[in-house]
Amino acid sequence: MPTPAIPAIVLLSGGLDSATVLALMRRDGFAVHALSFDYGQRHKEELRYAALLAQSMGVASHRVVPIDLAAFGGSALTDPQLSVPETGLAPGIPITYVPARNTVFLSLALALAEVLGARDIFLGVNSQDYSGYPDCRPEFVQAFEALAQVATRLGDAARGPRIHAPLQFLNKSEIIRLGTSLGVDYGMTRSCYQLDAEGRSCGRCDSCRLRREGFQKAGIADPTPYQGS
Amino acid sequence: MPTPAIPAIVLLSGGLDSATVLALMRRDGFAVHALSFDYGQRHKEELRYAALLAQSMGVASHRVVPIDLAAFGGSALTDPQLSVPETGLAPGIPITYVPARNTVFLSLALALAEVLGARDIFLGVNSQDYSGYPDCRPEFVQAFEALAQVATRLGDAARGPRIHAPLQFLNKSEIIRLGTSLGVDYGMTRSCYQLDAEGRSCGRCDSCRLRREGFQKAGIADPTPYQGS
Repeated sequence: MPTPAIPAIVLLSGGLDSATVLALMRRDGFAVHALSFDYGQRHKEELRYAALLAQSMGVASHRVVPIDLAAFGGSALTDPQLSVPETGLAPGIPITYVPARNTVFLSLALALAEVLGARDIFLGVNSQDYSGYPDCRPEFVQAFEALAQVATRLGDAARGPRIHAPLQFLNKSEIIRLGTSLGVDYGMTRSCYQLDAEGRSCGRCDSCRLRREGFQKAGIADPTPYQGS
Repeated sequence: MPTPAIPAIVLLSGGLDSATVLALMRRDGFAVHALSFDYGQRHKEELRYAALLAQSMGVASHRVVPIDLAAFGGSALTDPQLSVPETGLAPGIPITYVPARNTVFLSLALALAEVLGARDIFLGVNSQDYSGYPDCRPEFVQAFEALAQVATRLGDAARGPRIHAPLQFLNKSEIIRLGTSLGVDYGMTRSCYQLDAEGRSCGRCDSCRLRREGFQKAGIADPTPYQGS
């Protein structure tokens, strides 16, 4: 009898990074339980791509958890009063930063891990994210893993839950090359903060800039549909 | 001009412990922002008592955040398939433990703290809780505080958010004596896992047992309305 696959959780946004992580997990033979969040993001359309990815990559389960981060305000991604900048990356923490977002997402992943008995949680944070967002930095991932060791009943066993950020030290073009080699169809992913109802990207927000540049530097054709083109 | 009060967050359940923490914060002059969760708990009635407490203790704000922990299952508190035990405290982690609950709640408190610029988060975990629940132990509180230091933009300043568990080393009767001295009206709190629609407690679940015993040992009259009495 074949060994049953080891269950693992992935935070799946519908973007390029988490799609690549999912492909890595598939290659490594995990039974992948994908977790997405409907958190009041203005680019809610991304959830449609998360579902597409989950299905096409054959995950064991995909859950979309509603969570009202918009009620707290404070981010251009969830607050309709604030606008998404299109002027290029500025120093400091961007206005698109959502307070404690990855802490909240990983906490819910930890809850699910505990219920499923999964000891591995994956997320797609990477070096270009952590230049701006505090909760994408390696020290954040390490601190969350330390918390996970004592926060659940899993931590009482020999090995508590591990938090894996396999793209941590890669930039966008390296991620795109890796994913392409793993067979990721990036046409099925979206990264834009201002995605329209037809799933077309603005091409101007920080996230679009990083993505576009990534394909250029990787020398790989960009499959992203852009608005007005 | 008086100094504006320092903002702080409290996790408010409607129970005896968080009511006592709220009273401590009021005595210390914080502008208290209370956070409660509608997480699919079977004793959802407790939220009515959280609102009562928040109002009577003059908090600066009170938010009730819906969060679908019940969708994950795995706990007698959120899963209607499992029943709440009435046979007294057994060794190990109780079936009423909700996976990663305090991790999820503190994450959301951290998000709110970041939006409000609050650097102090209070919760009512205590020594009788952490005998059974991993996420009530002192090492959990410490690990979450370490995470909070690196998880938000607050952590970049001189002092990141602190997680305060002022009841950590007190037992139920000590908490009840403390709260009584601070003017807490415990008749406005509920602890029962099987609270009925009229707000009466079962008197038989673990939470009721601990509470009842606490009043007895403290030598203070128990104001809790019980079912069938």
